[in-house]
Amino acid sequence: MKKFINRPEDVVKEELEGIALAYPELVKVNFNPNFIYRADAPVAGKVAVISGGGSGHEPMHGGFVGKGMLDAACPGEVFTSPTPDQMLEAAKKVNSGAGVLFIVKNYTGDVMNFEIAADLARAEGIRVLNILIDDDVAVKDSLYTAGRRGVGTTVLAEKICGAAAERGYDLKRVADLCRHVNLNGRSMGVALTPCTVPTAGKPTFTLGDDEMEVGIGIHGEPGRERMKMKTADEITEMLALSIIEDKEYRRTVREFNEEKGEWTDVELVSEPFRPGDKVLAFVNSMGGTPDIELPIIYRKLHEICEKKGLTIVRRLIGRYITSLEMQGISITLLRMNDELIDLWDAPVLTPALRWGM
Amino acid sequence: MKKFINRPEDVVKEELEGIALAYPELVKVNFNPNFIYRADAPVAGKVAVISGGGSGHEPMHGGFVGKGMLDAACPGEVFTSPTPDQMLEAAKKVNSGAGVLFIVKNYTGDVMNFEIAADLARAEGIRVLNILIDDDVAVKDSLYTAGRRGVGTTVLAEKICGAAAERGYDLKRVADLCRHVNLNGRSMGVALTPCTVPTAGKPTFTLGDDEMEVGIGIHGEPGRERMKMKTADEITEMLALSIIEDKEYRRTVREFNEEKGEWTDVELVSEPFRPGDKVLAFVNSMGGTPDIELPIIYRKLHEICEKKGLTIVRRLIGRYITSLEMQGISITLLRMNDELIDLWDAPVLTPALRWGM
Repeated sequence: MKKFINRPEDVVKEELEGIALAYPELVKVNFNPNFIYRADAPVAGKVAVISGGGSGHEPMHGGFVGKGMLDAACPGEVFTSPTPDQMLEAAKKVNSGAGVLFIVKNYTGDVMNFEIAADLARAEGIRVLNILIDDDVAVKDSLYTAGRRGVGTTVLAEKICGAAAERGYDLKRVADLCRHVNLNGRSMGVALTPCTVPTAGKPTFTLGDDEMEVGIGIHGEPGRERMKMKTADEITEMLALSIIEDKEYRRTVREFNEEKGEWTDVELVSEPFRPGDKVLAFVNSMGGTPDIELPIIYRKLHEICEKKGLTIVRRLIGRYITSLEMQGISITLLRMNDELIDLWDAPVLTPALRWGM
Repeated sequence: MKKFINRPEDVVKEELEGIALAYPELVKVNFNPNFIYRADAPVAGKVAVISGGGSGHEPMHGGFVGKGMLDAACPGEVFTSPTPDQMLEAAKKVNSGAGVLFIVKNYTGDVMNFEIAADLARAEGIRVLNILIDDDVAVKDSLYTAGRRGVGTTVLAEKICGAAAERGYDLKRVADLCRHVNLNGRSMGVALTPCTVPTAGKPTFTLGDDEMEVGIGIHGEPGRERMKMKTADEITEMLALSIIEDKEYRRTVREFNEEKGEWTDVELVSEPFRPGDKVLAFVNSMGGTPDIELPIIYRKLHEICEKKGLTIVRRLIGRYITSLEMQGISITLLRMNDELIDLWDAPVLTPALRWGM
């Protein structure tokens, strides 16, 4: 294992120390429990948006803390859920009184720990709503998941909900918007290489010199199929068609019902894409993919969307939700409407996303 | 070789097609000869800034085309200099009449081809000045270079000169500024892995499982020393001290003298860093390095700069001048003054760098 690290067990701590030194005008870092928060938090009257999850997916989530996006991010150890005390303390730090939205990727540990944190925060008088992201069409259940995994749509939900909170949407409305984004986003990824968790010291899985894992998870979880390498166009077509032709997806998730004061089961439905839809196209590098290859993917994706009657109205191309040094890419399509486009375009100023400020 | 490409010989063409589709509001692409240019070029009255070089270093240079930075970028094939017709046609396309600055990394092929292009453009009545970037302290001469190689300072020079051109600096003043930036910037890199040029199909060099190449070039050129892996802190210290303790560097370069109407030798001197200097600290990923590791490098760099009496007044952390999927990092320090800080902060809107717009 060759990495730019000191002791493997210090990676997250030292990363956070570096972030605190690197972006003092944007964020601050709290240690023990670990979280990154907006330098100007709490922002009076504004709903606070918090996310988190295992480290190793940088810039998600810590790189998205700042004006117009997240108020705080809670990083676990690499590929390990953060603990409830992190989200609880983050919520106490950034809550202005307008309440807190937890954006939670659908992994069993994350879901459980964000639920516990929400209960603890409510016990301290903080309004909290949890919204799940479960947008990965690759597999129904997975290594760490009941139901679909949460992947690329998370980045888009954080941007859009962050903008909405900045605009003054109240907690219920930001949560409804987040659920709406999740229901309208679909993703799928492919890996050419594994990655190595520093404390493990060896790759999470192995792949032959001519093989790829289609439908890979962001922690290296198995996907749909291991197959021989194909061309960029063929790979893009496999991912894009899996997303575009994905059928109606129904699932039951737990959300906190504020009127009843308890967690309740909610049935959610993702409608398939249809000709005429406007979409945001997100081509994401999983970390080790050279930048020269991403426009080659986008080129084919653009052609496929046109052929399928989808109009790409916004794009995001780069490395935003990664798996350490994994060479791989994922595609996310998010059905857009005027409100989402407007919120997407709103100014954002974070370490990893910045425009309009 | 596993890459997201179609035919290896189509990589650059298809990348450019993808860029044209992905960023239509920012850039346009000309094919045969290949160059990327600002969608709104030529900008009336503004000096045009053009750079270029082999592909494989994305986002440099094509990702830096847009408002506040480059007017055009000329990509060669991967790790191969662009040809003079590319720069000539780019100059004709973006010249507003205020003249063109060519920012040229010091590699023999690039230097020659940009000189030829400048002569051809002058023959067509376009004022052109060429300024070299030769900031890599690792080695005196190298595989493709007489003198030091041009690396990380190129990115900073493109941003700063682009801002100056936008502000209305005339050609002479933008060229003087570019030379000043080069003389005040120093860089050095290290690689943990090689990379594979698509048309070659195999790694540019080999490195043992416990080895790194210190002083690596951006095309995989040998550096100062191959050694056993060290910790992030030790590696950062090696690079930072090589930069900070680099002595006065004198060299003779060719620049075009407009008064004499001919290329003339100019002696240039880079002064060493001194306690009290303000610097921009640039921690660059060479492509495959996980984002989680960059703040760990910055953390140590910050400490070393403080210890050496250098004040970091601006920072750039991310992947900006890469070598395909190479896992490696480089550090650049640029001595800043009020003018440079002001130009650095000026708005920029390109695919890869955007703020303030």
